[in-house]
Amino acid sequence: MLKLYYVPGTCALASHIALVEAGAPHTVERLDFKTNQQNSPEYLKINPKGRVPTLVTDRGVLTETPSILAYIAQTFPQAKLAPLDDAFEFARVQAFNSYLCSTVHVNHAHKGRGYRWATQETSFADMKAMVSKTMAASFGLIERDMLKGPWVMGDSYTVCDPYLYTLTLWLDGDGVDIATLPKVKAHRAAMEQRPAVQKVLAEQKA
Amino acid sequence: MLKLYYVPGTCALASHIALVEAGAPHTVERLDFKTNQQNSPEYLKINPKGRVPTLVTDRGVLTETPSILAYIAQTFPQAKLAPLDDAFEFARVQAFNSYLCSTVHVNHAHKGRGYRWATQETSFADMKAMVSKTMAASFGLIERDMLKGPWVMGDSYTVCDPYLYTLTLWLDGDGVDIATLPKVKAHRAAMEQRPAVQKVLAEQKA
Ligand SMILES: N[C@@H](CCC(=O)N[C@@H](CS)C(=O)NCC(=O)O)C(=O)O
Ligand SMILES: N[C@@H](CCC(=O)N[C@@H](CS)C(=O)NCC(=O)O)C(=O)O
Repeated sequence: MLKLYYVPGTCALASHIALVEAGAPHTVERLDFKTNQQNSPEYLKINPKGRVPTLVTDRGVLTETPSILAYIAQTFPQAKLAPLDDAFEFARVQAFNSYLCSTVHVNHAHKGRGYRWATQETSFADMKAMVSKTMAASFGLIERDMLKGPWVMGDSYTVCDPYLYTLTLWLDGDGVDIATLPKVKAHRAAMEQRPAVQKVLAEQKA
Repeated sequence: MLKLYYVPGTCALASHIALVEAGAPHTVERLDFKTNQQNSPEYLKINPKGRVPTLVTDRGVLTETPSILAYIAQTFPQAKLAPLDDAFEFARVQAFNSYLCSTVHVNHAHKGRGYRWATQETSFADMKAMVSKTMAASFGLIERDMLKGPWVMGDSYTVCDPYLYTLTLWLDGDGVDIATLPKVKAHRAAMEQRPAVQKVLAEQKA
């Protein structure tokens, strides 16, 4: 049985949606950032990085959204969440997810987690002020060059889609108007029609 | 035929080493950051992100180090650069590479590329001053919890190894003494015994 550690509103939403889309038997456990539970000794024993998501499997622990998403796609092949028989197309899925992870998510993190990379309040304010620009630039590239439509990879829904959707939910708080990104906006609307997405959003809100 | 765009001293070294380890027929093209060639109109047509590495294949273009490394491992299976028949072990390879890409590389980038996330000279100086700490923390975690030894995944050499090696070369310039990281240090030394690594270092220096 798989177990996912998550916090509502975080990138862990992508893995949570993917588990439900895959029909994967799983449980979830919610952590609380307010009490800094991600850095509790118990949790650090499971994931020494002190982050979510963490996926606990019978074989051991997996971290990192792109890795967890690829694992779900590969272990539940009947759900067809990635082009598993085509190394080039599979690599394109990984490239998209790696861009979200290493660039888009990192841009967003400069809003509230500047202390990861700097020490001064003035630096935090400077970083925060730039987030709407960096997020607009990254999503501009996604809109123009990456999101084929209706799904990220075109006609096939893949693990790229819950991940893009998750980061799309941050746009408003990051000061980017989704109306300037028509394809991204249509993608978000299409995601919200999916029963798996509705189910997970309700569960995370409860 | 594969073609890799690279700049010496960058993360593209990992993909370059992996191509040679795989015995993959390929050519390479060197770009020059000094003339900002990564942002030339010609290159942006190939990789609109304006970064290296870029791998051009017969099917199209791949970017993002973890994706390129997984592609090389999957398309040259006889080189055994990843546990291709075990989704869990494959995901662990991807998780390691995703951590390097999204956290370790990003820590390092705050030394010279602070303008990606801020605008003020004082912020750049603040970020730069913290790089030795963030790199020491990330490599401390790698030393303690991730690098099994002798190779990252244990007895099998995988695409994690050239990637870790590449980032290890940044430690000195980032103010981290590799002597404080005995397993990482032994890994670097073992890498430098490999003919593929020697060949690529010589080619990138030439
Ligand atoms: N590269 C990781 C990043 C994970 C991450 O940073 N998660 C955030 C939530 S979106 C977190 O746990 N932050 C807690 C903290 O920084 O203390 C991934 O993509 O899974
Ligand atoms: N997430 C990308 C990052 C690529 C990247 O940032 N490469 C750097 C060199 S290490 C670069 O091209 N920088 C050029 C620039 O920022 O203009 C990957 O892992 O491949």
